[in-house]
Amino acid sequence: MKETTRQKLIDATFEEVYSHGYQGAALADILKNAGVHKGSMYHYFGSKKEMALVAIQERISTRNFEKYSKILALESGYLRALLTAMKDTKQRDFKRGCPIANIAQEMSNLDEDFNKTMKLLYEEFRRYIKNILDKAVEAKEMQACDTKKMALFITAALEGAILSAKATGNAQDYIDSVEILEEYLRAFSNN
Amino acid sequence: MKETTRQKLIDATFEEVYSHGYQGAALADILKNAGVHKGSMYHYFGSKKEMALVAIQERISTRNFEKYSKILALESGYLRALLTAMKDTKQRDFKRGCPIANIAQEMSNLDEDFNKTMKLLYEEFRRYIKNILDKAVEAKEMQACDTKKMALFITAALEGAILSAKATGNAQDYIDSVEILEEYLRAFSNN
Repeated sequence: MKETTRQKLIDATFEEVYSHGYQGAALADILKNAGVHKGSMYHYFGSKKEMALVAIQERISTRNFEKYSKILALESGYLRALLTAMKDTKQRDFKRGCPIANIAQEMSNLDEDFNKTMKLLYEEFRRYIKNILDKAVEAKEMQACDTKKMALFITAALEGAILSAKATGNAQDYIDSVEILEEYLRAFSNN
Repeated sequence: MKETTRQKLIDATFEEVYSHGYQGAALADILKNAGVHKGSMYHYFGSKKEMALVAIQERISTRNFEKYSKILALESGYLRALLTAMKDTKQRDFKRGCPIANIAQEMSNLDEDFNKTMKLLYEEFRRYIKNILDKAVEAKEMQACDTKKMALFITAALEGAILSAKATGNAQDYIDSVEILEEYLRAFSNN
């Protein structure tokens, strides 16, 4: 029961911050959507800011884990699985964009605690991609290369592609950008 | 004299929005930094929002014009000049990031007027890159290719690279991402 109230707060906070940004997030709306009173909230979190940081960290980490640990657990076909995940537009909300990018853009420059949290999430995202590339190299699906730098480039290009689609309101911009990224990666493929 | 007051408001508004986002921008601070009274402001702009939209549009368009029209006016060496501009980190503020990306991330989803303005600015940025690529192809510096799609990919990768550096606080992330982008573009070069 306690976990349920906490999870309701986490989910409502994440949705509010994802939709409106942290500065635009209204605590009253979060509490209303969670169906939780302010007094109960303070049982779990010291402040709106603490609740937002926990919600962002937990929700994004969980999503990345679900998305990428599956690929890392494969026996083979790492690069193919990564390309499939990149091209899967059904799981993406182009209207709201990427939550990591949104919150980093808004807050990294303004608040040291947000800065630290977003830095860790960004590095976690990159590490998943690097680990997948390392598996692909190890399995001889891909030529040996600087996988750290390539992971940096892939995450940057993906974030930029999502932003393109958000800025122009055209999901095709994401698809076209990722097609070029795929072309670039296929040049390193051994298959 | 009238132009000067207007320009002071434009510059102070742009700096405030660039540093704090639109939702975090305080009109009192803008007026203080511009050294302009609220009454004078309403002589030029109907609202804080109108002033912000004009400031964003004017300042970003001017900067893009200064940066890219110079390259378009060259007689040759278009691709080289584009790569040099991309690699020039002195003109970039990685702490605050890219103003187009920041404002699009924050506002495109929340307000139709911001959505329109950021869409036009994003498309203008892409058009400059496409026109430079077209010049490079015309001058036979580059192989014929889908320059529209490539311009989309270049702007996405650049925006993503700037965000990387902002999120991790490490300008080297931008440099490394752009190095891979350069490698990719050089594969199309005839020189």
